[in-house]
Amino acid sequence: MASGSPSIPDAADVIRVPFAELVERLSAVLTWAGFDAEDAALCARLFADTTRDGIYTHGVRRFPRLMAMVRNGAVQPKARPLRISSSGALERWDGQSGPGNLNAWRSMERAIELARQHGIGCIGLANTNHWMRGGTYGWQAAETGMIGICWTNTMPNVPPWGGTTPTLGNNPLVLAVPRRSGAVVLDIAMSQFSYGALEAWRLRGEQLPVAGGFDAAGELTTDPGVIEAIRRPVPIGFWKGAGLSLMLDVIGAIVSGGRLTAEIPADSFRETGVSQVFVAIGPGERFGRAAEEAADEAIRFLKSSEAVSGARIRYPGEETLRIRAENMARGIPVEEALWEQISREESW
Amino acid sequence: MASGSPSIPDAADVIRVPFAELVERLSAVLTWAGFDAEDAALCARLFADTTRDGIYTHGVRRFPRLMAMVRNGAVQPKARPLRISSSGALERWDGQSGPGNLNAWRSMERAIELARQHGIGCIGLANTNHWMRGGTYGWQAAETGMIGICWTNTMPNVPPWGGTTPTLGNNPLVLAVPRRSGAVVLDIAMSQFSYGALEAWRLRGEQLPVAGGFDAAGELTTDPGVIEAIRRPVPIGFWKGAGLSLMLDVIGAIVSGGRLTAEIPADSFRETGVSQVFVAIGPGERFGRAAEEAADEAIRFLKSSEAVSGARIRYPGEETLRIRAENMARGIPVEEALWEQISREESW
Repeated sequence: MASGSPSIPDAADVIRVPFAELVERLSAVLTWAGFDAEDAALCARLFADTTRDGIYTHGVRRFPRLMAMVRNGAVQPKARPLRISSSGALERWDGQSGPGNLNAWRSMERAIELARQHGIGCIGLANTNHWMRGGTYGWQAAETGMIGICWTNTMPNVPPWGGTTPTLGNNPLVLAVPRRSGAVVLDIAMSQFSYGALEAWRLRGEQLPVAGGFDAAGELTTDPGVIEAIRRPVPIGFWKGAGLSLMLDVIGAIVSGGRLTAEIPADSFRETGVSQVFVAIGPGERFGRAAEEAADEAIRFLKSSEAVSGARIRYPGEETLRIRAENMARGIPVEEALWEQISREESW
Repeated sequence: MASGSPSIPDAADVIRVPFAELVERLSAVLTWAGFDAEDAALCARLFADTTRDGIYTHGVRRFPRLMAMVRNGAVQPKARPLRISSSGALERWDGQSGPGNLNAWRSMERAIELARQHGIGCIGLANTNHWMRGGTYGWQAAETGMIGICWTNTMPNVPPWGGTTPTLGNNPLVLAVPRRSGAVVLDIAMSQFSYGALEAWRLRGEQLPVAGGFDAAGELTTDPGVIEAIRRPVPIGFWKGAGLSLMLDVIGAIVSGGRLTAEIPADSFRETGVSQVFVAIGPGERFGRAAEEAADEAIRFLKSSEAVSGARIRYPGEETLRIRAENMARGIPVEEALWEQISREESW
C-alpha cells in the first residue's frame, strides 16, 4: 500500500545513533524525570523501536512532547494501571494518567495472558495517555503468535462528514497477525492524512496523491497547506471513516468505562484521559496448517493483481523489516538538535 | 453521514406489502425449497427486516439469489452450524454451507451467550454463505444490551492499491452499540461504493459525490458507469481501506479456521465458503452511568460541529428507525414482479 507518512531520515541535520546508545540516553532522561528504572527502560525502548522501524513521526521526535506533558502534569511518570473490574476474558483498567506507551504495552500483555486462558482476551483501558505508535502493540501481540487488535480515541481533530469543525478523533486502529517471516501490522488513523503528513507534503512543495481535505470553498483539495490552514482533513472513505471513528470512540469509552473524544481536551499538550481497547486472540489453525501461513497466502494473492504501470502492490507494513534492518546496521536516524537535547538531562 | 446506497422505494413498479404477509410468503417459499419450518420463519423475517429498515439492496431483492444458490447447491437449506472447537470465550464453528443469515444469526447469539459468561465472546464461523445485511447482527447484539462487532470476507471484488484486477474482498464490517432510543449500527463495506450503488447512481444519470474508482486511463473518477465497466472500484481511504480489507480477511480466516478471499469463487452465484467473525462485549458502565448514554453523548457532540451550508450531520444508521416506522405503517416496499414471484412457489 502507499504511505501517507513521508519522512526524511537522511536530511542534512540527521545523525545516526547506535540503537543501544539511544535507548540508554532516553532511559537516563526518563529516570531523571521521575520514571522508575524498569519503566524508564521499557519506555525508552518503545520510543527507539518506533524510530528504528521507520515510523519517524511517532518515535523519538515525540519524546519532547512526552517530557512537556510530564512537566505540565498530564503524564504521571510513576502511575501504574489499576484493575477496576474483571469479567473473565474482559477486564477494565484505569491508566491513572500514566505514560501512554507503558500503559498500552501492559494492557496488551494482559490481553495476551487472558487470551491464553480464554481463547480471547480484552482490556478496556481508561484514563491513559497517547500511546505513541499504535502498531507497537500489534507487533507485541503478533510476536507471541496472537492476533492483536487495538484502538485509541483522541482529542477532537477531524470534522464529521457535513461539518467544518472537529468533533471526531482520528482514533487510530491497529490490526496485526502473526507470520513466520515477520508480523503483518496495519496501523491507520481515521483521517486520510495526519497533520504531520500534511506538513511533510507541504514542506516538499508537493500535492497530495488523493484528496486529503477541504478548501475554504468547501471543495475537496489535494493542497496540503490549505487543509492544514483551515483544519479540515477528510476521514478515510468520507462518511464511512467518519462513522468508523464515531463507533471506535463510543465502543472504547464503553469497554474501558472511560472518556469519549467529546471529553478530551483539544490541545495536543493536554490531550489526556483517552480510552483504549486491546484484544488478543489465540491463533488456531486453518485446514490443519498453522495460522501463520494465512497471511502469506493472502499476500501472495494480493500481489497477483495486475499492477498499474510502475506501481508496486504492497501489504501493510511491508517496508518495516527492511527499514528496521537498515537502521540497526547504520544507526537510528535522529535530528542532531534533538540528540543534543537527549544527551543532557539538564536541557529538559 | 451521507449514504452511498440510494434506493427508490416509491418507483412506479413498487407495491407496499404488510410486514406479516411478506414474512409469511417468504417463509412458505423457503419451506417449499427445503428449509425446516423454524429456519424458514427466521430466514424470512431477516429478509423482511432488512427491507423494512430501508436497506433495499440487501433485503427481499436478494431473495432470488438465495433461491438460485439453493438450487445450484451452494446453500444447503437444512445445514446447521457445527462447533469445531472451544477455548472458553472463543469458539470455532463450521457453517456447513448453510443459509448465511441463519448461520450468522446463530453465531452472534452464541457470542452473546459467551459474553454473558466471560465478559466477551467471539465466534469464528467458517464455511458459511453471504450473510445478506451485516447490520442485522449488530442490531441483534445491541438490542440485548451488548456491543456487537462482526465482519465477513467475500469473493475478490476490489483491486488492491496499485493493482487493476480484484484480489481483495469488500469485506463488510459492522460495529454496533446499544442505546435506549435505538441502537447505533455502522455497516460498511471496504469499497467506497458497492456495485449496487454504482448501478443506482448510473441509472439516475448522476455523478458520484466523491471519486469511487478508476477510469481506463488510471485516473480517479466520479463516473459510476466507467467504474462498473472496468471493475475498478476504490477502497475506502485508498491504501488504508485496502490494508483494512486484507487484515479483516486474514483475521477472519485464522479465527474461523476457514477460507481466505483468495479461496472463494469469484462468481456472485457461487460465492460460498466465506469466513466470518462475531464478537459481543458486555456493556459495563461509564462514570457510574449506564453505557447506553455514551452513544447519546458522542452523537450530541458530533452534531455540535458547525455544519456545511445545507448539510445535515448524521450518525451511522440515523435514518433507520424513521424508515422502519414508515415502512411498518405504509407496508414494506417490494417490486411488483418480485412480489408476484414470491407469491407462487411454483414460480421458483
